[in-house]
Amino acid sequence: MINDRLQKQFAFALEIDKEKMIGRQTYLSTPDADNNLRKENDAEHAWHLALMVILLQEYANEPIDVLKTVSMVLLHDIVEIDAGDTYAYDETGKLDQKEREEKAAERIYGMLPEDQAREWYVLWKEFEERKTPEARFARALDNLQPMMLNHATDGKAWEEHGVLLSQILKRNIPTPEGSQVLWEYGKENFLKPNVDGVKIKGDCNF
Amino acid sequence: MINDRLQKQFAFALEIDKEKMIGRQTYLSTPDADNNLRKENDAEHAWHLALMVILLQEYANEPIDVLKTVSMVLLHDIVEIDAGDTYAYDETGKLDQKEREEKAAERIYGMLPEDQAREWYVLWKEFEERKTPEARFARALDNLQPMMLNHATDGKAWEEHGVLLSQILKRNIPTPEGSQVLWEYGKENFLKPNVDGVKIKGDCNF
Repeated sequence: MINDRLQKQFAFALEIDKEKMIGRQTYLSTPDADNNLRKENDAEHAWHLALMVILLQEYANEPIDVLKTVSMVLLHDIVEIDAGDTYAYDETGKLDQKEREEKAAERIYGMLPEDQAREWYVLWKEFEERKTPEARFARALDNLQPMMLNHATDGKAWEEHGVLLSQILKRNIPTPEGSQVLWEYGKENFLKPNVDGVKIKGDCNF
Repeated sequence: MINDRLQKQFAFALEIDKEKMIGRQTYLSTPDADNNLRKENDAEHAWHLALMVILLQEYANEPIDVLKTVSMVLLHDIVEIDAGDTYAYDETGKLDQKEREEKAAERIYGMLPEDQAREWYVLWKEFEERKTPEARFARALDNLQPMMLNHATDGKAWEEHGVLLSQILKRNIPTPEGSQVLWEYGKENFLKPNVDGVKIKGDCNF
């Protein structure tokens, strides 16, 4: 019995290794040996978020269960192993994103022993639905981490995608619901200096 | 005051982005678009470990504080931003590894506000010293995760480095101290099938 349970757990542990191959649109701040900037992958992003939850927990609008929040950000992109990464400003990709991710969650979390399958699925859903303090804080950081990196890379990803300020502000409506302080900091330090019509196109006011 | 604290925290959050550029010797289980296997980096490794702590916590020899253990594995390789990754079987590199890592810890954790600098440094030290149940379990997984990936990639990394079974067993003396169950599983499923003189050179008995 232990062996059957452990086999399922290790099969899952190996399956999630694939998340390291799922690319995002954000550039890392450090060039590689050939002096090129490469894009981040989902596993790196989740690791960064998890440490930022621990680092910045004091700024959550409401008290949070830190382990729950860290767990949530660590697992939130596992569905992208099947569903792929949908860029924040890809309006077409978003049309069937929910459906693709739901199917992925069922398959991948379904590899776990029943109790864990349920538990991890519920945690993923909680992140998606943003109805708890933990999910709201997790989502705030999920928006702020790429904003920090985009600023650090001179707006490269924003510029390449011709992103509008109105799109960024719409995307960030949930950010102050997780952390007013961090949203203000990000707005002042990561967004405002880049609204120059090249990096971010300023089609509206803050 | 909040702003000074926050600035330090965000400077640290950006600094650790560099961990994504620190390469390890372990190959990932999934080939890239050109059908090549690439090696793992420290951030991906730490993410994988953190999820494995949550997934496999029930097998720790002693009760553990899960948040503390997860935090420990998330931050344990930050020192390698300055000190680089020292391969498990690189006996020359290990000679001054402690010194290099100590210096790195002082610089990097020193970027944090004082309370957090102390807290994160202490947690890193605890991992290194393996004297608590959390550190022992974290170390067990730090050994088992690459073992799982080496097995999944047909022993590629072991073979390339001409690794001896005696080296692996020595490296893994602390593994059963963190989890007897996981060590037995890893030994039977990830090590034994690969001791064939090519992938792992069997110079001793189990």
